[in-house]
Amino acid sequence: MESRYKSFVTVEQLPALVGQTVTLHGWVQDKTGKGKLTFIRLRDGSGMVQCVVFAPNVEERVVNDAKSLTQESSIAITGTVRAEQRAPGGVEVDVADVKIYQLSTDYPITPKEHGVEFLIEKRHLWLRSSRQHAIMRVRAAVVKAIRDFFDGSGFKLMDSPMLTPNACEGTSTLFETEYFDLGKAYLTQSGQLYAEASAMALGKVYTFGPTFRAEKSKTRRHLTEFWMVEPEMAYFDLNDDMDLAEDLVEYIVQYALKTCQQELGVLERDLSKLEAVRRPFHRMSYTEAVEWLNKNNVRLNRKQSDGSEVQIDFPWGEDFGAPQEEAIMTQFNKPCIIHRYPTEVKAFYMKRDPENPRVVLAMDMLAPEGAGEIIGGSQREDNHDALLERILHEGLSQEEFQWYLDLRKYGSVPHSGFGLGLERTVKWITGAEHIRECIPFPRMIYRISP
Amino acid sequence: MESRYKSFVTVEQLPALVGQTVTLHGWVQDKTGKGKLTFIRLRDGSGMVQCVVFAPNVEERVVNDAKSLTQESSIAITGTVRAEQRAPGGVEVDVADVKIYQLSTDYPITPKEHGVEFLIEKRHLWLRSSRQHAIMRVRAAVVKAIRDFFDGSGFKLMDSPMLTPNACEGTSTLFETEYFDLGKAYLTQSGQLYAEASAMALGKVYTFGPTFRAEKSKTRRHLTEFWMVEPEMAYFDLNDDMDLAEDLVEYIVQYALKTCQQELGVLERDLSKLEAVRRPFHRMSYTEAVEWLNKNNVRLNRKQSDGSEVQIDFPWGEDFGAPQEEAIMTQFNKPCIIHRYPTEVKAFYMKRDPENPRVVLAMDMLAPEGAGEIIGGSQREDNHDALLERILHEGLSQEEFQWYLDLRKYGSVPHSGFGLGLERTVKWITGAEHIRECIPFPRMIYRISP
Repeated sequence: MESRYKSFVTVEQLPALVGQTVTLHGWVQDKTGKGKLTFIRLRDGSGMVQCVVFAPNVEERVVNDAKSLTQESSIAITGTVRAEQRAPGGVEVDVADVKIYQLSTDYPITPKEHGVEFLIEKRHLWLRSSRQHAIMRVRAAVVKAIRDFFDGSGFKLMDSPMLTPNACEGTSTLFETEYFDLGKAYLTQSGQLYAEASAMALGKVYTFGPTFRAEKSKTRRHLTEFWMVEPEMAYFDLNDDMDLAEDLVEYIVQYALKTCQQELGVLERDLSKLEAVRRPFHRMSYTEAVEWLNKNNVRLNRKQSDGSEVQIDFPWGEDFGAPQEEAIMTQFNKPCIIHRYPTEVKAFYMKRDPENPRVVLAMDMLAPEGAGEIIGGSQREDNHDALLERILHEGLSQEEFQWYLDLRKYGSVPHSGFGLGLERTVKWITGAEHIRECIPFPRMIYRISP
Repeated sequence: MESRYKSFVTVEQLPALVGQTVTLHGWVQDKTGKGKLTFIRLRDGSGMVQCVVFAPNVEERVVNDAKSLTQESSIAITGTVRAEQRAPGGVEVDVADVKIYQLSTDYPITPKEHGVEFLIEKRHLWLRSSRQHAIMRVRAAVVKAIRDFFDGSGFKLMDSPMLTPNACEGTSTLFETEYFDLGKAYLTQSGQLYAEASAMALGKVYTFGPTFRAEKSKTRRHLTEFWMVEPEMAYFDLNDDMDLAEDLVEYIVQYALKTCQQELGVLERDLSKLEAVRRPFHRMSYTEAVEWLNKNNVRLNRKQSDGSEVQIDFPWGEDFGAPQEEAIMTQFNKPCIIHRYPTEVKAFYMKRDPENPRVVLAMDMLAPEGAGEIIGGSQREDNHDALLERILHEGLSQEEFQWYLDLRKYGSVPHSGFGLGLERTVKWITGAEHIRECIPFPRMIYRISP
């Protein structure tokens, strides 16, 4: 018993159906006419095809219905698939019948240019545009690439919880909610601590889900809700971690290049930039990066006590901001990993470098073309007492982190992991201007709807 | 330049490496000895293998180190892979060297039986047990099956947001959080409304992420945080929706059977029960189900005003509870879809049956063996005025749902979808007794940690 739905034909199947009569279901992107011809551009989600009504060949009702169509009207079109080299996709449809589901009136997004504030307010409709289609399809491809990469490399998916009893990195940027009689719960900022527990059970794991930051950052690179994939690997050291990160990012970019040619074309993306993303990537230590900044006169603005500003050398020990990262990346046409950051600017769970305790075995991957940080990771502190000292130093509760400390009591092992931000990666690959275009329904400090 | 991590050998690779010398990294499941022999059962997340130390063949240090090992000590073992038909996996390792990372002491979970309350408190360690391993690996396989099914059938992944400005199905069971200057935000109970907007843009979509219910349900089938996959399809009617649901569930179960033989063995699952899960499934209308209950004397306990209880026929119009669902399923060895429920017990967005407005075009799929409801879905109301009437009837805000009403103004189409609960599906397939074993870190009304 074959299901009815399996007989539905979609636009992307048409090139294989030349000469056949099909029925397509979709929406009118636009409609034009010339004499006895009416051209309907039909979108069905799988693609777009031009459907041609030639008046002498069809009933008068069909001609009139076709002429009545408006942007975003919902219709079914029955017709014959014809090869047409000049058409995108190589086919057109000669229309035999049109069935109207609904004539749309006053569709608010017209072919003219709209302000982005208007479009984001109408996000539920903006998603119908060919540019948003393309970004969403690349996003889906990136997710598939990530999951295929890990599923195919012996990793087990271990979803970390969203609701957590404590904060992974500070408490000032957390969304909180009442949790029955158990007090407050917080929305996760990272699944890492849970991924570490999972890695001690299953060796190589990844968690891939939403994470939350109640940050008041109004940049083109910040969302309050974003997806992050976080692999965590028992017995991996920092070098293994960096190697894996390179392999993953190369795989994602090359997969997108291979499977999203059409979408990247719609986005007018320079494919040569993506083709260049091949291992090995660049690597430098934080200390080398500071030396490079100072040697190249990338100066830091520093406010004096009297309110005036001076330009100074970048001081070893401070964290990089976007200006430093962008300056460093001007040299490179593929990603660069910066490793071994000062202990004080990184999280408590990172392992100190045995060869230099002023730095931790951390690494960030910066993407080229101004895309900025897409990965942050580290080798984790695996010594119980050293970790406890860092927890207490940060003013965190030993009791709340007891389960996490347990991992250093019962068969502790060297282990490492990282987090890759999905939307930042999609922004880089698609060349989207703002991260809000890289998730179906973006959440920012000034936007919670639709 | 090959990465070091790629040369790591794991237990699951051993059958192909007979005769070769390998180094494995993992944890000691247990250790026994007999004369000159020490047997170490090593777990590395990919599997378990017995490693044999024969004293005359190795240095004394290795013998002493092997004898010192305790449960959950972390070690690397170097040795030669030997075929051994009697061993699970068909191989053993003849040990040449042992490297100890950490000797574990007083590991709290011993081979004796522990109460489940103790185990859930130690969830970060309980995950290391072979039974929990098996469930987690089945869970990962089910997720992969779901994503492969949709990615391979022309569906686009469209992640719905977690933070939402309004409630999909009532407000009493919502987690809420302050959202900057925009007032309250609520954790999503379902991505469906957003999936509908996405389906109008991309035809066939699915959203797959965490969902939240602040329900005070203390059953073996309720979590406050659980994962749900929700496909939504433009131009699908209720029959298409039911067909797709059957195809999906058959695919998941048969994929798990094919790829998780070993795990289902550990769980002592009766495979014949899963083999029977083949399309077509059973179907009956709600009305037929009520008739069946009453014909078979499945009576309902009803409290009288004086506090006494009487047993009555099941009254048409009330929703089924677990007792009714379980009674109905006693007839079947594969899932059953119940469709066309009374309008009053279902959500406002479901389309009324044109042939009988007392019912909506809803469908629930019940799994056999007492597993209960795993899917709920419907054809959606696609008429603007009918939907608005339902929104107002429910006392919901027209303004907040304006974007959702827009979908019925600009090219409305018949469309349908459903949600499948991941953990309930894993519970059914694994035969786990309680749903808390079916997610790495369960959240229930009395549990938010670890």
